[in-house]
Amino acid sequence: MEGGDARNGLTGTSQTTGSGVESPAKPLPPCCVKARAAAPESEAKCHATVVSGWFTETRSRCGKASKLQYYNNPMWPGETHSLKVDKILYQGKSPYQEVLIFESLTYGKVLVLDGIVQLTDKDECAYQEMITHLPLCSIPSPKKVLVIGGGDGGVLREIARHGSVESIDICEIDQLVIDVCKDFFPDLSVGFEDPRVRLHVGDAVEFLRNSPEGTYDAIIVDSSDPIGPAQELVEKPFFETIARALRPGGVLCNQAESMWLHTHLIQDMLSICCETFKGSVHYAWASVPTYPSGAIGFLLCAKEGRPVNFLAPINPIEKIEGAMTAGRDIRFYNTEMHRAAFVLPTFAKRELEAYSCSTIGHNKRKNQQNQRRLPSCHTVKFLPLRRGLRDLFNSPCAGHQVLTGIVAT
Amino acid sequence: MEGGDARNGLTGTSQTTGSGVESPAKPLPPCCVKARAAAPESEAKCHATVVSGWFTETRSRCGKASKLQYYNNPMWPGETHSLKVDKILYQGKSPYQEVLIFESLTYGKVLVLDGIVQLTDKDECAYQEMITHLPLCSIPSPKKVLVIGGGDGGVLREIARHGSVESIDICEIDQLVIDVCKDFFPDLSVGFEDPRVRLHVGDAVEFLRNSPEGTYDAIIVDSSDPIGPAQELVEKPFFETIARALRPGGVLCNQAESMWLHTHLIQDMLSICCETFKGSVHYAWASVPTYPSGAIGFLLCAKEGRPVNFLAPINPIEKIEGAMTAGRDIRFYNTEMHRAAFVLPTFAKRELEAYSCSTIGHNKRKNQQNQRRLPSCHTVKFLPLRRGLRDLFNSPCAGHQVLTGIVAT
Repeated sequence: MEGGDARNGLTGTSQTTGSGVESPAKPLPPCCVKARAAAPESEAKCHATVVSGWFTETRSRCGKASKLQYYNNPMWPGETHSLKVDKILYQGKSPYQEVLIFESLTYGKVLVLDGIVQLTDKDECAYQEMITHLPLCSIPSPKKVLVIGGGDGGVLREIARHGSVESIDICEIDQLVIDVCKDFFPDLSVGFEDPRVRLHVGDAVEFLRNSPEGTYDAIIVDSSDPIGPAQELVEKPFFETIARALRPGGVLCNQAESMWLHTHLIQDMLSICCETFKGSVHYAWASVPTYPSGAIGFLLCAKEGRPVNFLAPINPIEKIEGAMTAGRDIRFYNTEMHRAAFVLPTFAKRELEAYSCSTIGHNKRKNQQNQRRLPSCHTVKFLPLRRGLRDLFNSPCAGHQVLTGIVAT
Repeated sequence: MEGGDARNGLTGTSQTTGSGVESPAKPLPPCCVKARAAAPESEAKCHATVVSGWFTETRSRCGKASKLQYYNNPMWPGETHSLKVDKILYQGKSPYQEVLIFESLTYGKVLVLDGIVQLTDKDECAYQEMITHLPLCSIPSPKKVLVIGGGDGGVLREIARHGSVESIDICEIDQLVIDVCKDFFPDLSVGFEDPRVRLHVGDAVEFLRNSPEGTYDAIIVDSSDPIGPAQELVEKPFFETIARALRPGGVLCNQAESMWLHTHLIQDMLSICCETFKGSVHYAWASVPTYPSGAIGFLLCAKEGRPVNFLAPINPIEKIEGAMTAGRDIRFYNTEMHRAAFVLPTFAKRELEAYSCSTIGHNKRKNQQNQRRLPSCHTVKFLPLRRGLRDLFNSPCAGHQVLTGIVAT
């Protein structure tokens, strides 16, 4: 794992970059107002999320009894994970979000957007490799791939292992994320150096609308918090736009939250994606220590067309020449892990299996027979973004969803 | 999941039970002195590990710059997990350890021994079910089973699902743990009500020495922190005593730390257990949100005799009459999860596979060909206990082991 000193002149300084213009977020209830990073201060360890030398994920401002709710993050109520800060390497603000990078004591460098950990040197391999190879190893010879978000470059680095890929479009809205990751996370931003990559800095919805129908073999949605720059990306129409841009039999992989924390939300995602994509739709998961509950989920969706069996990868990474060792070695993913990622604990199996759908063999669509009818408020939107569920609190039925999801597991 | 109000008259009160005599722990360097729970105070939320209404795992006392190391736990340096405390239900002290039970906001009731989370209502299913059924489903018709530690009763509850079992011995040193779990964790302590259970309150080493050779089909070691009551249980001679008490082809399951945090330690455990048990020895893991890194490992060891293939359970739980639903339903374990538990991420596979050993088919012992020779300090002791690595810091080479384990992943 990478670690130690940062690699350029920004090390140890506090900087502000970007216009400082606030993003046009919808009004939020007081409980959901994100803690904003403080203005840079002279002491390197000073930051609103750093208390006594520890970084702690976003603190809520909602409580009257503020002492008791000091660490209360409305997205994952009742728990928090803290990392020891060795040195703050960068802090700044783009038109879209606040960016913090620090060197931690034991997880290497850490990227934080709007107060929420996006990746650490130590465990980024699990997220980046799984979100990339789960879809790309499930289809034969992927050629055209689109990444939405992913400005750190890690997903690009992983896509580049696939020799069959001819073009990699990436649509990231925030130039600052790209720039600071090039400065501080060279092991991730190396992904931008592949000649197949075409970078589009801008709005993903706009980009997709301008893409010809049926363009992509695979689309990977790796975006940040849905409040702010990614807000449009969490609504059902966006997924219809994704489905339109995929070729028949093409696949989507989208972050899908933890089975320990949000089972009901995952049910909703599965239902809506079955309706939208009309091919196989499955939930997979991986162990990622710095994400809430230490686990993160992925939603795998195939557009109707040639059937896709996500559970038995047709394009195993070990058989792709040089894929395991191109650039740096693969650290997390392998074909056995691919299969194991779809194996669920009994509680999750009970709650999710009826909402998945298959288009392979005797399982063809049988799971859908048991699907419940969702009340209308469930179908308005869903929020499958990395660590991004806060918008749920805007919905009148959302509080119930979240609470049930937590208690039911 | 269980939650809500506690179920007896102790609710909301602070009590002290036990003699208050300190356990005869070896002298520790200042960095490793455990934070001790404060004497009971009048305010229900007052406890040394509870700050502003949050429980945080043991705080170190070592730092001169105490503010910066406020949450620094020497066992898992650089990170901590905090839970919101709703109400402290119990605090007390036995001759062996401090006991704290609180109602958390989102994980139900939480049992803490000497400042370290042992279990929560929400995720205890993962640990209890996996540590029990991984060994018991790997052998045909287990009859005599021994549990070491496990005073909460959860492992007993799981063993009771196996109709073939004729006797269940449990050797737990701390009567207070048994008593308070009966009061506050009835869903776990129900395990003691099975008529096959024989409780022995006392020292496990003594108990094993008095057991006839070759008595048990399976032994499950579910004990707490190795400093204090469990100290004797972490040394190599103890595992030789375990091997002696197992029948040929009998199996041990022992907690074995997280692959994310302590790879080198796991290598040592695998090596020593291959030498000691002379049958198959493998590492498995499961997702447990409230354990460090959100994952916990298990060491599965078979004594030489009839070969055991841990990777393909011969005694699947789904085929044992009533096992999935006896008492409360199984929540986590199933045969697919059993198999998936042995599938490792690439980094862990690279580092651990050469240290495992198999006695089945063409893999027979081939893994051992590549085993490194350990320096002598590695073979003195190893520390496979739940959340219990602090004793490592007593060893002159331990600091290196731990640091390497963390950085190498």
